[in-house]
Amino acid sequence: MSGNTFGTVFRVTTWGESHGPAIGVVVDGCPSKIPLSEADIQKELDRRRPGQSDISTPRKEEDAVEILSGVFEGMTTGTPISMIVWNRNVDSSPYERLKDTPRPGHADYPYEVKYGIRDYRGGGRASARETVGRVAAGAVAKKMLAEAGIDVVAHVIELGGIRACECEMTPPEIRERIEETPVRCADPDAAARMVELIGEVREQKDSIGGIVEIMATGVPAGVGEPVFDKLDGDLAKALMSIGAVKGVEIGAGFGCATMRGSEMNDAFLVSDGTVVPETNNAGGILGGLSTGAPIVCRIAVKPTPSIASPQKTADIRTMSETTITIQGRHDPTIPPRMVPVAEAMVAIVLADHLLRDRGSKSVKFLLNRAYHGD
Amino acid sequence: MSGNTFGTVFRVTTWGESHGPAIGVVVDGCPSKIPLSEADIQKELDRRRPGQSDISTPRKEEDAVEILSGVFEGMTTGTPISMIVWNRNVDSSPYERLKDTPRPGHADYPYEVKYGIRDYRGGGRASARETVGRVAAGAVAKKMLAEAGIDVVAHVIELGGIRACECEMTPPEIRERIEETPVRCADPDAAARMVELIGEVREQKDSIGGIVEIMATGVPAGVGEPVFDKLDGDLAKALMSIGAVKGVEIGAGFGCATMRGSEMNDAFLVSDGTVVPETNNAGGILGGLSTGAPIVCRIAVKPTPSIASPQKTADIRTMSETTITIQGRHDPTIPPRMVPVAEAMVAIVLADHLLRDRGSKSVKFLLNRAYHGD
Amino acid sequence: MSGNTFGTVFRVTTWGESHGPAIGVVVDGCPSKIPLSEADIQKELDRRRPGQSDISTPRKEEDAVEILSGVFEGMTTGTPISMIVWNRNVDSSPYERLKDTPRPGHADYPYEVKYGIRDYRGGGRASARETVGRVAAGAVAKKMLAEAGIDVVAHVIELGGIRACECEMTPPEIRERIEETPVRCADPDAAARMVELIGEVREQKDSIGGIVEIMATGVPAGVGEPVFDKLDGDLAKALMSIGAVKGVEIGAGFGCATMRGSEMNDAFLVSDGTVVPETNNAGGILGGLSTGAPIVCRIAVKPTPSIASPQKTADIRTMSETTITIQGRHDPTIPPRMVPVAEAMVAIVLADHLLRDRGSKSVKFLLNRAYHGD
Amino acid sequence: MSGNTFGTVFRVTTWGESHGPAIGVVVDGCPSKIPLSEADIQKELDRRRPGQSDISTPRKEEDAVEILSGVFEGMTTGTPISMIVWNRNVDSSPYERLKDTPRPGHADYPYEVKYGIRDYRGGGRASARETVGRVAAGAVAKKMLAEAGIDVVAHVIELGGIRACECEMTPPEIRERIEETPVRCADPDAAARMVELIGEVREQKDSIGGIVEIMATGVPAGVGEPVFDKLDGDLAKALMSIGAVKGVEIGAGFGCATMRGSEMNDAFLVSDGTVVPETNNAGGILGGLSTGAPIVCRIAVKPTPSIASPQKTADIRTMSETTITIQGRHDPTIPPRMVPVAEAMVAIVLADHLLRDRGSKSVKFLLNRAYHGD
Repeated sequence: MSGNTFGTVFRVTTWGESHGPAIGVVVDGCPSKIPLSEADIQKELDRRRPGQSDISTPRKEEDAVEILSGVFEGMTTGTPISMIVWNRNVDSSPYERLKDTPRPGHADYPYEVKYGIRDYRGGGRASARETVGRVAAGAVAKKMLAEAGIDVVAHVIELGGIRACECEMTPPEIRERIEETPVRCADPDAAARMVELIGEVREQKDSIGGIVEIMATGVPAGVGEPVFDKLDGDLAKALMSIGAVKGVEIGAGFGCATMRGSEMNDAFLVSDGTVVPETNNAGGILGGLSTGAPIVCRIAVKPTPSIASPQKTADIRTMSETTITIQGRHDPTIPPRMVPVAEAMVAIVLADHLLRDRGSKSVKFLLNRAYHGD
Repeated sequence: MSGNTFGTVFRVTTWGESHGPAIGVVVDGCPSKIPLSEADIQKELDRRRPGQSDISTPRKEEDAVEILSGVFEGMTTGTPISMIVWNRNVDSSPYERLKDTPRPGHADYPYEVKYGIRDYRGGGRASARETVGRVAAGAVAKKMLAEAGIDVVAHVIELGGIRACECEMTPPEIRERIEETPVRCADPDAAARMVELIGEVREQKDSIGGIVEIMATGVPAGVGEPVFDKLDGDLAKALMSIGAVKGVEIGAGFGCATMRGSEMNDAFLVSDGTVVPETNNAGGILGGLSTGAPIVCRIAVKPTPSIASPQKTADIRTMSETTITIQGRHDPTIPPRMVPVAEAMVAIVLADHLLRDRGSKSVKFLLNRAYHGD
Repeated sequence: MSGNTFGTVFRVTTWGESHGPAIGVVVDGCPSKIPLSEADIQKELDRRRPGQSDISTPRKEEDAVEILSGVFEGMTTGTPISMIVWNRNVDSSPYERLKDTPRPGHADYPYEVKYGIRDYRGGGRASARETVGRVAAGAVAKKMLAEAGIDVVAHVIELGGIRACECEMTPPEIRERIEETPVRCADPDAAARMVELIGEVREQKDSIGGIVEIMATGVPAGVGEPVFDKLDGDLAKALMSIGAVKGVEIGAGFGCATMRGSEMNDAFLVSDGTVVPETNNAGGILGGLSTGAPIVCRIAVKPTPSIASPQKTADIRTMSETTITIQGRHDPTIPPRMVPVAEAMVAIVLADHLLRDRGSKSVKFLLNRAYHGD
Repeated sequence: MSGNTFGTVFRVTTWGESHGPAIGVVVDGCPSKIPLSEADIQKELDRRRPGQSDISTPRKEEDAVEILSGVFEGMTTGTPISMIVWNRNVDSSPYERLKDTPRPGHADYPYEVKYGIRDYRGGGRASARETVGRVAAGAVAKKMLAEAGIDVVAHVIELGGIRACECEMTPPEIRERIEETPVRCADPDAAARMVELIGEVREQKDSIGGIVEIMATGVPAGVGEPVFDKLDGDLAKALMSIGAVKGVEIGAGFGCATMRGSEMNDAFLVSDGTVVPETNNAGGILGGLSTGAPIVCRIAVKPTPSIASPQKTADIRTMSETTITIQGRHDPTIPPRMVPVAEAMVAIVLADHLLRDRGSKSVKFLLNRAYHGD
């Protein structure tokens, strides 16, 4: 049973291979009457696109999105929203040589075992290009979340061991700062050192990993569906399902392993007539439900597996050991381009859970408000 | 839309509150003809049960499981397996006082907001007692996995900052060692220090967190369902959905953030006519699919939120700030009892994905083998 | 991938075999704060129970339900509602003889092929006793629907070729009348003839089929989820999934095949400021969405397959032809006992779709009403 | 929660509006290594297309399909198959007038209530054009079923009260005969009278309904997933979800209501070492599982709701009664064009359930065959 659909109410189905004719996504379950245009989607796709600076791969992907359904006179209609981006400017020839020699750190080998056939050109379905569909769907989710006053932002907080300072910033502040540097780190000093390190690593034909933090503000308390579809559980799945992510943490995360309970627990205060946690070690989630505090998650992103140095691998036809050198130019680090993708996945989870929560309210809530139009 | 079911083919639905009449689980989608007895389930429930040593809470939960359906003459029949454990020996009186004052670090507050009503006795649905159902379902999954030669084991590798040595061990070796100490750490020296620390922490009316590692061996290559239901994605969700878990990592995990690509990539070798990774930084998963190498994950477990010291909280009826002191005896640390629960969740994910993978094979695989009985 | 769960938001999972220890159901996704007691469930189970009159099998099933979770202080809490009925008074000995000789018209043969093992006692999982779980879940659905002003009723309109008169009645009128006769037909004259025919058929060691009509009033317009989860599609599935049902029709149903468009189309009128169809050939559903008119469906129920006459069958061990005579007393006709089961399935579909519809409304509807408690 | 996806393992998601830029479908879960070309899809789309004869609407839809993903070197790869058909030659002007006056028998009114906005041009999402996606997905399903020796065919057996003779034919015989007449009825004599009647009805500015029968041969015994996802339950849903269908029956169907049990029950014989039913009143399904006999279903199709005579309706802006006359040419009867759509839906259900069944077999079946490639 395949797994190309994510979400239960706000449902996202991506399709397409890196070097096939096109790549796209169908979003089912988006509420009606949300203003939506191709420009809303394009803005996010442009952030994802490679070739935006000299630290990322120069392949020219124009990635112009077309909305094919689900929008009428500038508004969503409640029917499926189909979006497509044509693949252009693809050169599959460098991949011909890699057909039988799985690249270390890539999905080539297990795909071959699983399906017995694979489109090996450009990584096929396992290419990072698949995130085009995620980002487009995430743009729709963000439009819906904006109506609810929810804001999602991601930024690079560590790259190749260089850590940004921990300063409290709001999502708009982070958003403004990260677009000033190609590494999408909100600390300008750390960002400068990261850029320098990337240059060195590229010289060494090597690559580096890092950590991306995602924050969402404005999420009301009570969102999440215990005991399995907890908000943190679905965030973990959504983020871990992005290629190159090897770890996910919420709030204090792995740091909680060395904390005491008296330190970890966030006391509750009363402010403006509502309950608010004094600190946010919980990362905005308790028992799988949002607390009303900002949702904070971090993901560990591995170094780009495509490196220019020779690597040992197996020839799966002859079943013998061999060496490959991956050609073409590849980003020496992934986290800066991970930023819009991570935002998209978090936005999709929040849109889905916000809608799911509506069906979990008390019957009085559901019915009192059910029959009075909009 | 509620979320009390986990899995898509091997489907687990838990139900029950801590102080209700009973707690239980329905497992749907388990293949037929697997030998299964109440003793198989009981063995795992006994590992989960509190009161097994002086480091855990002394509540006497007998937790005797009854299988109510889906098994005939000692074998599964392919129909739903319903299992029940009655709640006995419960004293709800200490919780009466906590009705209006949410405990910091617990789910009380957002449950109240979400549902407008909650069974506050013993934490209700958000109690750790809910894991009874997970462990029972995990025991069924383990029986199925055993037929496929898959073994799952978990152990405590860090507690209150004390780290176990990193020695290579097989699942049976780990299993043997961890049952020799109440902290379920396979390094006897570290285990002794952990026990000591727990004593100190209890004196201080505080609690500590830790890290649990889960390993699965024997998983064939190609298991997982990209691009959203990747094996690591579903493991992350399964583990993050356990109460008190704040982080999940696979293989090198957060460590990958400071590694170079040349170091992180696992080269492929050929051994005994099959492809094997030379190292296992990937933790047995590439592109969301198993590689044939052991699956390795780790989870960060927060310190027990129920501590005996006074804590600030809000009174949600009067909307004023107040102080509570949680009574009763609570484990000062969760990871040792998390071990069987984490094993159960990983076993459920693997059973589910092993079955899902069958439907993703090539049509030739599916049909050639489809009509020749068993 | 098994299929023992029905519904997507209001989710019903039944479990249990006819002669196992118990039979039960878990309802996940019921909104909180609905008053619910065991008496609400028991009332419906008592209608389903056999042995209520001399036209149905005299097996004494007490069928006392216990609610094990999801209800606190008389109200639903939004967590899973687990309900159980113990199997008592079972005698499995008559089935021992039928182990290898599948009964014509029963599920014995394909179950054996599918699973390679089956609990043959009392029909096992394929027994009509499985409907205990459906009726219990339906009772919960009815409580929820009552809060929304929705009423569901079923009645026998044809039995052994005897047709009830077509008189317009409201659900309460139908409900009152059908409980006055063991055949649950609202036309007393037809009912008397049906009772007489049943007596004759029993003498002949044979059985008869019939037609049950189900009506639901108060369903607001716009409920249903095109293009696949249309309201009529899910009603058809729900009803066809009941054992012995061989046909489902909505509104004019098969009669539409001989109608002209000018006759079939229901004109729209305006009444009390709302749009209402003048006639109801659509059975309350257009394009898979409710129109606000009563939902009307009918099901064809086959004659009881367990008849006392000898029947040809195969011995699946020796693979030879043989003859069986089914012992024990069986109802000579199913429709009267189908009434509460059909009501239950329709109630479950409506509860599910009413909740699903909430998440399909315009975003303005969802959000304006989202944050103001209840 | 929207419902534009059908199936659980073989999953079909359609999208698109009648007068939007395009219409399409994503098929997820199709096994790998099935030969598939655009010609395979086009062949079925050509059967669905209007304007093929003078009994159907003359709109020229070229409906050329493009496969955008999931196929590599002529074979399926196990990844999602995205297919698109551009909408050309559309004239939305006649619909402008119908914006506020819902057409009787159409989905206009409840769509407006549900979503608060709708693309009214050409019926929007509720147009019969949506079946393009179903037929394309069905063509993929048929390719998979062909590998398993399963054949699906539909034909018109009644139109405007004219009934075809009941002669036993194999699917290939039916297929050959129905393409010889525009009404797709395999009885040439009845077909001629149907064609004549259609001419008369068109003169009268009216329309007629009919009955379509669908047969599937080669389905092995044991396919279906009790107790809710029974094979007949899912067939009923799949067929009832097609616009204009008001009834579904299996085997003897509504006829069973007047049969005796001794007549209805299909005796089991032994033939060629396997168990076969002597008759097929069950329509190939017992207890929700296939028996190995041909699957037989019939659907009631209502008269085309778009008729050229004036009809009463409501103006939903002014909330007053009015009259509309639907312009343009519309088919006076739907069943002939329903044939490929009904085949597609049955093929999708069978493909899905064949794959689901694989995961329900005994563990020995699953695992013995699991690790030996293909």
